[in-house]
Amino acid sequence: MKLLEEKIQTSGKVIEPDILKVDSFINHMLDPELIMAMGEDFYQHFKDKPITKILTLEVSGIAIAFAAGHYFKVPVLFAKKIESLTLGDDVYSTQVISYTKQKEYTVKINRSFLTADDHVLIIDDFLAKGEALKGLLELCRQAGASVEGIGIAIEKVFQGGGDRHRQQGYDVYSQAMIERFENGRVVFSPPQ
Amino acid sequence: MKLLEEKIQTSGKVIEPDILKVDSFINHMLDPELIMAMGEDFYQHFKDKPITKILTLEVSGIAIAFAAGHYFKVPVLFAKKIESLTLGDDVYSTQVISYTKQKEYTVKINRSFLTADDHVLIIDDFLAKGEALKGLLELCRQAGASVEGIGIAIEKVFQGGGDRHRQQGYDVYSQAMIERFENGRVVFSPPQ
Repeated sequence: MKLLEEKIQTSGKVIEPDILKVDSFINHMLDPELIMAMGEDFYQHFKDKPITKILTLEVSGIAIAFAAGHYFKVPVLFAKKIESLTLGDDVYSTQVISYTKQKEYTVKINRSFLTADDHVLIIDDFLAKGEALKGLLELCRQAGASVEGIGIAIEKVFQGGGDRHRQQGYDVYSQAMIERFENGRVVFSPPQ
Repeated sequence: MKLLEEKIQTSGKVIEPDILKVDSFINHMLDPELIMAMGEDFYQHFKDKPITKILTLEVSGIAIAFAAGHYFKVPVLFAKKIESLTLGDDVYSTQVISYTKQKEYTVKINRSFLTADDHVLIIDDFLAKGEALKGLLELCRQAGASVEGIGIAIEKVFQGGGDRHRQQGYDVYSQAMIERFENGRVVFSPPQ
């Protein structure tokens, strides 16, 4: 998606060998025009699938998933990482490893919000090794929901999570595919 | 806002004497149609103010603030509660007490995203005693930014946070004002 790639080049920052900071438009401050366009782009890609629900992970996936939900006109469910007094015990739950944050955490969804009748589009901001995605897929598996597709804003292709899930048969669509970092700059994969 | 009040009556759940659960459309699953309408309603209320930025608090404020940002066409900044590797030390920061979660936490924003040139609309999902709001106002004070208004989805009027901030001169607009809970049902304040 040209608009997102351009925004990454102008406003993203490579802060470590392999960390891209997109705090000024996705992870801390949101650019509503860009993110609405990303939501519409996901809609264009997946609109022929019978999507009934969008699933993402708090925090950074929320705005992007919400924008997609606006176009699909379906509810957007975000899995919770933080302990919540009101979530209760009636949950699907799994563990996710975050390499960026160097810790493991639990993600949960309330059972009543995801069922075997659901056809899910999973959306997230980043796909690197695919650990968060694995957690979201596991929640769908526990609920018996069908996964119709996976929409990612930014894929770090060189970390392998995208290809591994494509090989498993998932329709993984990433709007910006980073092939590598080079002298603090982002090099995108050529269009497929 | 009629649409939100109706949704609270049909889909909200009063789970303790004074806790309203809106997990099925705001706090865990999002209803994009409702939340976009809430964003537009905030725009109608505050559109004559020179808003340059919307400020909210992760997690539950994000979708509502994003929807408002879509109508205002301004960036949406969400203060962070969670430790973030990429946020760095160049932050404004303050403490917030959560009575619901019975703990105190730190909220932070990157200094570069809020400045003395900003005219801020603060948006949040709930206003009870006003502790989270106090934290967001403190971040604006540290940045020297002007607070043009405060938009709240659900105000628990009986907990006093709204009135205290109105008395301080803030333009606080709440879309649904809960006067009290009665036998597990919500009673709204009469329209002003």
